[in-house]
Amino acid sequence: MRTQVGIIGAGPAGLMLSHLLHRHGIESVVIESRSREYVEHRLRAGVLEQGSVDLLRDSGLGARLDREGLRHEGIELRFDGESHRVPMTELTGRAITVYGQQEVVKDMIAARLAAGGTILFEAPAERLSGLDSAPVVHFRFQGRDEELHCDFVVGCDGYHGISRPTVPDGVLTTYERTYPFAWLGVLAAAPPAVEELIYAHHERGFALYSMRSPQISRLYLQVPADEDIADWPDERIWAELRTRLETVPNWTLNEGPVLEKSITPLRSLVVEPMQWQRLYLAGDAVHIVPPTGAKGMNLALADVALLGDAFAAWYADGSTQLLDGYSRTALRRVWRAQQFSWWMTSMLHRLNADDPYEAKLQSATLRYVTTSAAYATSLAENYVGLPEV
Amino acid sequence: MRTQVGIIGAGPAGLMLSHLLHRHGIESVVIESRSREYVEHRLRAGVLEQGSVDLLRDSGLGARLDREGLRHEGIELRFDGESHRVPMTELTGRAITVYGQQEVVKDMIAARLAAGGTILFEAPAERLSGLDSAPVVHFRFQGRDEELHCDFVVGCDGYHGISRPTVPDGVLTTYERTYPFAWLGVLAAAPPAVEELIYAHHERGFALYSMRSPQISRLYLQVPADEDIADWPDERIWAELRTRLETVPNWTLNEGPVLEKSITPLRSLVVEPMQWQRLYLAGDAVHIVPPTGAKGMNLALADVALLGDAFAAWYADGSTQLLDGYSRTALRRVWRAQQFSWWMTSMLHRLNADDPYEAKLQSATLRYVTTSAAYATSLAENYVGLPEV
Repeated sequence: MRTQVGIIGAGPAGLMLSHLLHRHGIESVVIESRSREYVEHRLRAGVLEQGSVDLLRDSGLGARLDREGLRHEGIELRFDGESHRVPMTELTGRAITVYGQQEVVKDMIAARLAAGGTILFEAPAERLSGLDSAPVVHFRFQGRDEELHCDFVVGCDGYHGISRPTVPDGVLTTYERTYPFAWLGVLAAAPPAVEELIYAHHERGFALYSMRSPQISRLYLQVPADEDIADWPDERIWAELRTRLETVPNWTLNEGPVLEKSITPLRSLVVEPMQWQRLYLAGDAVHIVPPTGAKGMNLALADVALLGDAFAAWYADGSTQLLDGYSRTALRRVWRAQQFSWWMTSMLHRLNADDPYEAKLQSATLRYVTTSAAYATSLAENYVGLPEV
Repeated sequence: MRTQVGIIGAGPAGLMLSHLLHRHGIESVVIESRSREYVEHRLRAGVLEQGSVDLLRDSGLGARLDREGLRHEGIELRFDGESHRVPMTELTGRAITVYGQQEVVKDMIAARLAAGGTILFEAPAERLSGLDSAPVVHFRFQGRDEELHCDFVVGCDGYHGISRPTVPDGVLTTYERTYPFAWLGVLAAAPPAVEELIYAHHERGFALYSMRSPQISRLYLQVPADEDIADWPDERIWAELRTRLETVPNWTLNEGPVLEKSITPLRSLVVEPMQWQRLYLAGDAVHIVPPTGAKGMNLALADVALLGDAFAAWYADGSTQLLDGYSRTALRRVWRAQQFSWWMTSMLHRLNADDPYEAKLQSATLRYVTTSAAYATSLAENYVGLPEV
């Protein structure tokens, strides 16, 4: 099998790239180890920044997003028994849109298939070869060994994918930070009690109130990193959510059947550079952010928007400038998002319980972000997404 | 000896309070363990925020400050081989003034003595009594035990003074953070090479270029916390300053004879509350900030500005509202300054050498502060001083 750009991974990054390349008249094939059913239903991020919404819309993927996405013009910060709204749109002119990653993925798959694109599901990539001149993706498909010959390979196959480990030792540098806590995430059949997200800082730990639709709430609790989900029956989850969120007068959580629950560790990670020979890496394959800043999917989309333009330039006239500069350009946004995500995480979570100075510092930071227009704007402009970084 | 308000310590806090009380027609006596010569020459902070300048001017202490103080409308951030100016006045409408703490102290002493005020030098306070109703400051003076009877005592005698330890165990809470580095400070007879302060982040550590007058430079180097000044002959200091500061084209340090050098550890500390019975605590007696944000003297002046108004209200009509609320009100500004000083310190110093993620985070933060008007404004508004906290 032969194509121009071989893409590994049918998450938002790989699918979006395939879609953007198609619009530039460039052929691609997407190789995905999981089933279509699986990738269309895995629960992930749910916040699209303004630039991501614009990218989806401008590339023709905005129809259902515009109908079903929930536009949010602010977020609420709840701490010390008070609630403060950060009016993001008032401060920046931009907004976020709540729309689940799996919905984005469904829209992308539908668009690619309608346009005659090729996505091979249940086709695990096994190794890459010829990356210095004539790349080949070796993969399994329907019981057979297959080869995808291409001009370039783009690894959008996440942190555990095969693309990044293909790069020889010594080429890449990994920057990493782990946190001593995780998020217990709950999807519940309960109408959201409020229209906007609530980020709550509580002495027992962080809680996040969000939603996926007018019928479905998405709730998170900070728990220790080694927590066992078996220790969290639904009633304990609701009780803890009430404790951490019902801290202001006349505010009550809406409860409902728990549809799904799981624990996800928090991690910050960047691998540099994001390219080697004819292999380009995008999204979770080379950077992971804690979910506090809602930046994961947005960074993945920003990466492949750069690659779309870079391949378009190369196929148009052989120009290598954008391709050569891909990693350097992308990393500016990646590090901006890393710093923002780390900052939101540090401000909102319960950190070292043995350091009372730290807790006072957090209160001072929260107080400042809710009283200074400048500092609130710095939160808001990152949250809605900086157009230029 | 009897007065209305007994003040321990003739630093900026104690002297300013005595001056402000005098303007309200309230008598005070300042007890200082050191000599006048000593307090007028000890080298300390040198940056006055806008509110401090306004306070000095409005209370009649602005004449020499206006003649000799250097008004700065920006600071320079130097990192990664680049230099960026934060245009503070453009961003906030306010400015800072470079004017040494010992000059402020000289002006205050002169004003108090000219007005017939009492400052007892070489008069070490030994203990306090009667704080619940009729306070007495017991002190030594000219070889004799003396007593100062007063309505209130204000402890402006620094962290090592006797005031704060007078409060019984269990009343006060201390919040503290130490840093694994110190500042080696140099006073040099060298004309400043630039007009504004340069905060430099370098892989070998932080450096600060500042000045005290058109003839005198004030320079700082980050060194390990346990560093011995004997290991820093002048030539080593200049070499290290050149390495950390001469990182941009066509910029050269002006060198000159070293007049003084010393090493100061960095520390963040807050003691709460700042009052007990008829004892009120101000300045370094209850809070210490690392010098990176230049907030120490400014906080001390802000504390006593509150106390001046509070005593004026009490002596006018017995109102206790401002006195009772002193600690709560002052601590808002104290924690704002703590967070700002910690943030400036964390952004600019070489931190954990074993954590390359941390170094990248610092670069991203510096890049952001020099590209986002909102984030730059948050630095600037803290640096020039927030009018309301």
